Amino acid sequence: MTGKLFVIGLGPGNADQVTPEAAKAVDSATFFYGYTPYVDRLALRDGQVKVASDNREELARANEALARAASGEAVAVVSGGDPGVFAMAAAVCEAIEAGPPEWRALDVVVVPGITAMLAVAARVGAPLGHDFCAISLSDNLKPWEILERRLTAAASAGFVIALYNPISKARPWQLGRAFEILRSVLPAETVVVFGRAAGRPDERIVVASLGAAAADQADMATCVIIGSAETRRIERPDRAPLVYSPRSLGAASR
Amino acid sequence: MTGKLFVIGLGPGNADQVTPEAAKAVDSATFFYGYTPYVDRLALRDGQVKVASDNREELARANEALARAASGEAVAVVSGGDPGVFAMAAAVCEAIEAGPPEWRALDVVVVPGITAMLAVAARVGAPLGHDFCAISLSDNLKPWEILERRLTAAASAGFVIALYNPISKARPWQLGRAFEILRSVLPAETVVVFGRAAGRPDERIVVASLGAAAADQADMATCVIIGSAETRRIERPDRAPLVYSPRSLGAASR
Repeated sequence: MTGKLFVIGLGPGNADQVTPEAAKAVDSATFFYGYTPYVDRLALRDGQVKVASDNREELARANEALARAASGEAVAVVSGGDPGVFAMAAAVCEAIEAGPPEWRALDVVVVPGITAMLAVAARVGAPLGHDFCAISLSDNLKPWEILERRLTAAASAGFVIALYNPISKARPWQLGRAFEILRSVLPAETVVVFGRAAGRPDERIVVASLGAAAADQADMATCVIIGSAETRRIERPDRAPLVYSPRSLGAASR
Repeated sequence: MTGKLFVIGLGPGNADQVTPEAAKAVDSATFFYGYTPYVDRLALRDGQVKVASDNREELARANEALARAASGEAVAVVSGGDPGVFAMAAAVCEAIEAGPPEWRALDVVVVPGITAMLAVAARVGAPLGHDFCAISLSDNLKPWEILERRLTAAASAGFVIALYNPISKARPWQLGRAFEILRSVLPAETVVVFGRAAGRPDERIVVASLGAAAADQADMATCVIIGSAETRRIERPDRAPLVYSPRSLGAASR
């Protein structure tokens, strides 16, 4: 008997942004592993079992889920957003690589989801309309010096930057330092978008400038998008501004 | 009378990857503008009107759609994948910025979708599990020198790279040249994923190495993901290999 492991992306948190593929995968699994707030989103039927755990326990969670799947069960690991973007799919792969050989025989199905930067970008226009990168600002798993180097390289090369995990109680200063680094490369008027809980009732989207951006405008649920020097802001009467990165270089100066 | 403009992401092409939000937006619009293969995906009812156009006509299409919306209609512009990633949302914003003042009064709603790199990544594991960037390899709208600089900067700084628009009849040599540039920075054994039409009946996913990667393994419908030096390949008996980028730096050498 061989079990099955789904790694499911539930999107930013709005039920209308859960794909039918994700909903079907949820329907076909029996055990659900994930960080508590994501598992709590699931409306399960009798016989479906939630196994919620803390944010920091990704590898332990992956191991438990794989062991359960290897026992012949249909198991799901759930993430908010997309499971492949700073989320559980990589932890599951790490666990498979380090785990017993039978885990490599499992049917592993990753179900993509709307990741935070896409949801936030959509709420303001098209800030990711040109080349862009996604960086997790957490230095729990990589040295801070590497992050500084990546921020500088990305901004210098003209990438729009989406920052995931910008700030937390345990990492209070990193976002402020990131803004300092970016201010040394980009103009003060560069557009910055703070996108919190996009598509949820507690959504808060703020369009600011790099010169005025402050770390306390973000929290754990925020994705911060920093424009390139080309990113534009369109003021609109009685509406929030639109933010977009032109498809062509130099369009800003046309 | 004020019209409404939806800019809708239809996902990679599998109906199960169209979000309910996108389906509802399609249901509420009357006129549908887009590149022919995307408009052709729509199952419309009587009274809903398709206005298909060619790939190269993005700005003209955006202008037409905005003019129609400004006349009081509910209009949709549709993209494959996510409309904010090398797609129509930026063209719509450009048109609004350059267009008549009344276009700024329009209710513009961007509906995110599963973009190609997320769908391709899901099919092989988690290659985007660490910091990554997305680059459109089309030099129609930016100088090739900028692209070379971005490829070098991204690979040197340790980003995984997702290449959109890797090749076309009009741009036959750029992808091969990109591989050459990347080979000068990354080891020959770096993982490369060619992901064509992920989730569609004509899907073709190939896991290769940078040393052996050739441009003719891609076509217009392919998203090419180039790993970082940390990206891992897990061989599995009787299954395709898993590819993932570890969450932590140095995990590859544990």
